[in-house]
Amino acid sequence: MITKKGAATRARIIDAAADEIRDRGIAAVTLEDVGRRSGTGKSQMFHYFPDGKEQLLLAVARREAERVLEDQQPYLGGLTSWAAWQRWRDAVVARYRRQGVHCPLGALITEVGRRTPAAQAVTSELLAQWQREVRAGIEEMQARDLVDRELDPGRTAGAVVAAIQGGVSILMSTGSVDQLESALDLCLDFLRQSTQLRTAGR
Amino acid sequence: MITKKGAATRARIIDAAADEIRDRGIAAVTLEDVGRRSGTGKSQMFHYFPDGKEQLLLAVARREAERVLEDQQPYLGGLTSWAAWQRWRDAVVARYRRQGVHCPLGALITEVGRRTPAAQAVTSELLAQWQREVRAGIEEMQARDLVDRELDPGRTAGAVVAAIQGGVSILMSTGSVDQLESALDLCLDFLRQSTQLRTAGR
Repeated sequence: MITKKGAATRARIIDAAADEIRDRGIAAVTLEDVGRRSGTGKSQMFHYFPDGKEQLLLAVARREAERVLEDQQPYLGGLTSWAAWQRWRDAVVARYRRQGVHCPLGALITEVGRRTPAAQAVTSELLAQWQREVRAGIEEMQARDLVDRELDPGRTAGAVVAAIQGGVSILMSTGSVDQLESALDLCLDFLRQSTQLRTAGR
Repeated sequence: MITKKGAATRARIIDAAADEIRDRGIAAVTLEDVGRRSGTGKSQMFHYFPDGKEQLLLAVARREAERVLEDQQPYLGGLTSWAAWQRWRDAVVARYRRQGVHCPLGALITEVGRRTPAAQAVTSELLAQWQREVRAGIEEMQARDLVDRELDPGRTAGAVVAAIQGGVSILMSTGSVDQLESALDLCLDFLRQSTQLRTAGR
């Protein structure tokens, strides 16, 4: 059982580590630096992260994964009209444009070891949660008769998340946000067209 | 100027290095191993790759990038009917299902240094060439009146390549090919619908 105060201290350490990594890069960060930055003593650092730097990095990765979704709120959680979908689309593009070619989460996952079960769990949970939220949005639109009810909301949400992932990975390789924009636009156009087609009596 | 025989020797070294990397991993590979496997002497290895292992790895990365597109042929080069698009879609899914969670090109790019200009050039050229080929397919379909001529073929091709990239990156994180399939299906459905909508007199 972790106390409220304990949880706050742990969160402070993780935030300090995230900032330290953003400023100086993962390789350069030491537990001492993070302790200093967060005002946490050595014994406390050891109390929360007894396994050392790797355990802390994994906690930071989990935090960065949460941030990926937080940065899309309140839009992602309220996809109930086309205007709302458009605002979400713009927020996603703006977030990744700001982030540019450096992905803190990607760097952490690479450092912890992309193929380790712990790193895979962080990535899988993020993708699953993201897909669930997009799916809820599609279901909302279907309930309002704005998206064709014949569409499989889970599969379609998976395609939307894949489109974003691909746009971001191209952004990170080339520095261009074009493919992210066109991939998201294609998905939104696809959803919009699904009802136009039904209305047109396909 | 490199002679025909010289080009063949160079290609043999690169193929041997690619096989060696597949069998034993990038870190373990030495120039001596590659020389032995390809039947190339030390002085010849030095002649073709005077800068050593890094230069060879970059040449292997270029070769793996070519293979990404070769593996999609003849389908990618002949997207002139819906049946052809479907065969291409199936070939892409089958290729990445076979490849699974290990991407030889990705590993090479990471090893050479994702942010180095040489690695970025390999990735950018692959993405640009891929997008050009998909774009040519969309333009073919537009010329045959099978895809709405109002669609921007370049932007749409960028979205399709992003969808594939994202599906593959999710496959590499989670082992599941689902998102790759649904992302490609969404893109194909989108292209098909574009004409249905026009026919329906949007």
